[in-house]
Amino acid sequence: MIRLGIIGTSSIAHEFATAAKASGQFEIKAVYSRTQFNAQSFGEGYGADLFVTELDKFTALEEVDAIYIASPNSLHFEQAMSAIANGKHLIVEKPIFSNTKEWEAAFSAAKANNVFLFEAARHLHEPNFALVKNEIAKLGEIDGASFTYAKYSSRYDQVLAGEEPNIFSLNFSGGALSDLGVYLLYAAIAWFGVPEEVDYAAKKIQTGVDGAGTMLLKYPYFTASLHTSKIYNSFADSEIYSAKKTLILDGVNLIQSVELVDGETNERYQLAEKASGHFMDDEVQAFARVLNDPENPDTIEDYERWTQISRDVNRTMEALRKKAGIVYPADLDEA
Amino acid sequence: MIRLGIIGTSSIAHEFATAAKASGQFEIKAVYSRTQFNAQSFGEGYGADLFVTELDKFTALEEVDAIYIASPNSLHFEQAMSAIANGKHLIVEKPIFSNTKEWEAAFSAAKANNVFLFEAARHLHEPNFALVKNEIAKLGEIDGASFTYAKYSSRYDQVLAGEEPNIFSLNFSGGALSDLGVYLLYAAIAWFGVPEEVDYAAKKIQTGVDGAGTMLLKYPYFTASLHTSKIYNSFADSEIYSAKKTLILDGVNLIQSVELVDGETNERYQLAEKASGHFMDDEVQAFARVLNDPENPDTIEDYERWTQISRDVNRTMEALRKKAGIVYPADLDEA
Repeated sequence: MIRLGIIGTSSIAHEFATAAKASGQFEIKAVYSRTQFNAQSFGEGYGADLFVTELDKFTALEEVDAIYIASPNSLHFEQAMSAIANGKHLIVEKPIFSNTKEWEAAFSAAKANNVFLFEAARHLHEPNFALVKNEIAKLGEIDGASFTYAKYSSRYDQVLAGEEPNIFSLNFSGGALSDLGVYLLYAAIAWFGVPEEVDYAAKKIQTGVDGAGTMLLKYPYFTASLHTSKIYNSFADSEIYSAKKTLILDGVNLIQSVELVDGETNERYQLAEKASGHFMDDEVQAFARVLNDPENPDTIEDYERWTQISRDVNRTMEALRKKAGIVYPADLDEA
Repeated sequence: MIRLGIIGTSSIAHEFATAAKASGQFEIKAVYSRTQFNAQSFGEGYGADLFVTELDKFTALEEVDAIYIASPNSLHFEQAMSAIANGKHLIVEKPIFSNTKEWEAAFSAAKANNVFLFEAARHLHEPNFALVKNEIAKLGEIDGASFTYAKYSSRYDQVLAGEEPNIFSLNFSGGALSDLGVYLLYAAIAWFGVPEEVDYAAKKIQTGVDGAGTMLLKYPYFTASLHTSKIYNSFADSEIYSAKKTLILDGVNLIQSVELVDGETNERYQLAEKASGHFMDDEVQAFARVLNDPENPDTIEDYERWTQISRDVNRTMEALRKKAGIVYPADLDEA
């Protein structure tokens, strides 16, 4: 049993705690929050018995093997560094860090301290995500791709009322790219590799972050356009093009439908596997597999592959943000 | 009855001849082709009785009031100038001219010679096209738009076999933007106006034209992304976004479905009118209305509006082509 500490008490942290506990691989041991009450209210239902309000005391707990971080984005780095210094393995919600400076510092520290550092990019671990990668290889030369993840956030109502919720705040490294676009980038980079050049036409909202935008990822022989938004809804499918064959996905995240369309016959073949259980089961199992068998060359290979994708996504996000002129306070801190 | 001469004997010319004849407004009088045989084979079924192989003789025919041009794009200009010089009204298939230099010269000549010059952008005249414009006005501030028209052309098989069919040839001012992208631009410009800035990520194919690409049209408060291709198929809907409301169109051309989705309830309302008859009926009637009533302020206003959109589309296409580094021989001719 991997004894887990949890930082953050939002709904995503609840989901992760539920999946982690249900997996039989993790024991929810401790919760950190700024107030004892919040930590306790969050953790007691999962059987946790340690509730801590000071970060350094929490990350030093001997009863904890690994820490899951689901706090606002801009807090990930300091929390992760504290946990790494205390020899804890880490699972950090996407987007893992605000910029490449933080990414490099944290992964260097993790390596030096001999701990695993995972970005919780859950779709990367879905069977259908791997299935799509496999279908892409069969298609041969790719001619284009169009991915969409655009969903109106109820928090945007607060922005319109003059407030600045974390996910729409520069101070908390928020915005559409950071929150939803990251899923699109994970898919593009895992499936097609690192683009040669990127551009980002962003719609900035009153708080200064991108509420929506279209990314162009330029590969040698095609361009992938990635469309994200937290201020309106898209119902469009995502598509991958190769001459007469088109793969139609109901999204690149939580993929439930993968249709291969033959453009000559217009016949459609459903390729997706049925997902079962909790939507975080796959990632929870993936992380547990590495943590439980850290010397196995296969698990190490998986970890290194995930780390490479995380790094590429992080770098690409920073390049895209620069193109749109979006600067986080986290970018300005002393190195 | 408007006595019509036809230049070009392709399938699109057949469609136009069919719709024109069926409208009761046009009589198909004459056909121009490089060979007498082609002109006659094309025209006899529509009741034409004049078949001409020399351009200047054809455009000078006294028995013809208006000429419809559906030749390869790069030939439109010379043919149009000859017809205008002979006082004929003109309906020219999209894209009307290769560049702004040709556009300005031809429309100046048309004005000086007191003839009407129409770009046959057929969807501009569809009831559902106007309906969408009307719905957009009701939405209030637009936050984004994504339009798609991407269809594998069987002519691309020829390109892959080393040939250079007109629609994929720089010499004939071909390519995806010119052939299908123009529909997307018409919709964006008619519905949203002229963008402040544009970009075009094009996939160039072996003949040097764009086989596919994504255009970004940047408006003050949002970006429209327009996705076109003649080398693969997209089945994605087109969408217009405004906060919690999304308009979903089955396309921006030949619009048969316009759904308004309320993002709070997920309810969908179908707004489209049922189209009837031949898909070119609306444009044929629109052109006839102007030609039959050329002094009417309402028809003049329509004509001027269409002309302005044609000009804006033509300029935007040229700007987009420049961004993608696509140069037509027609651009290099002496002014």
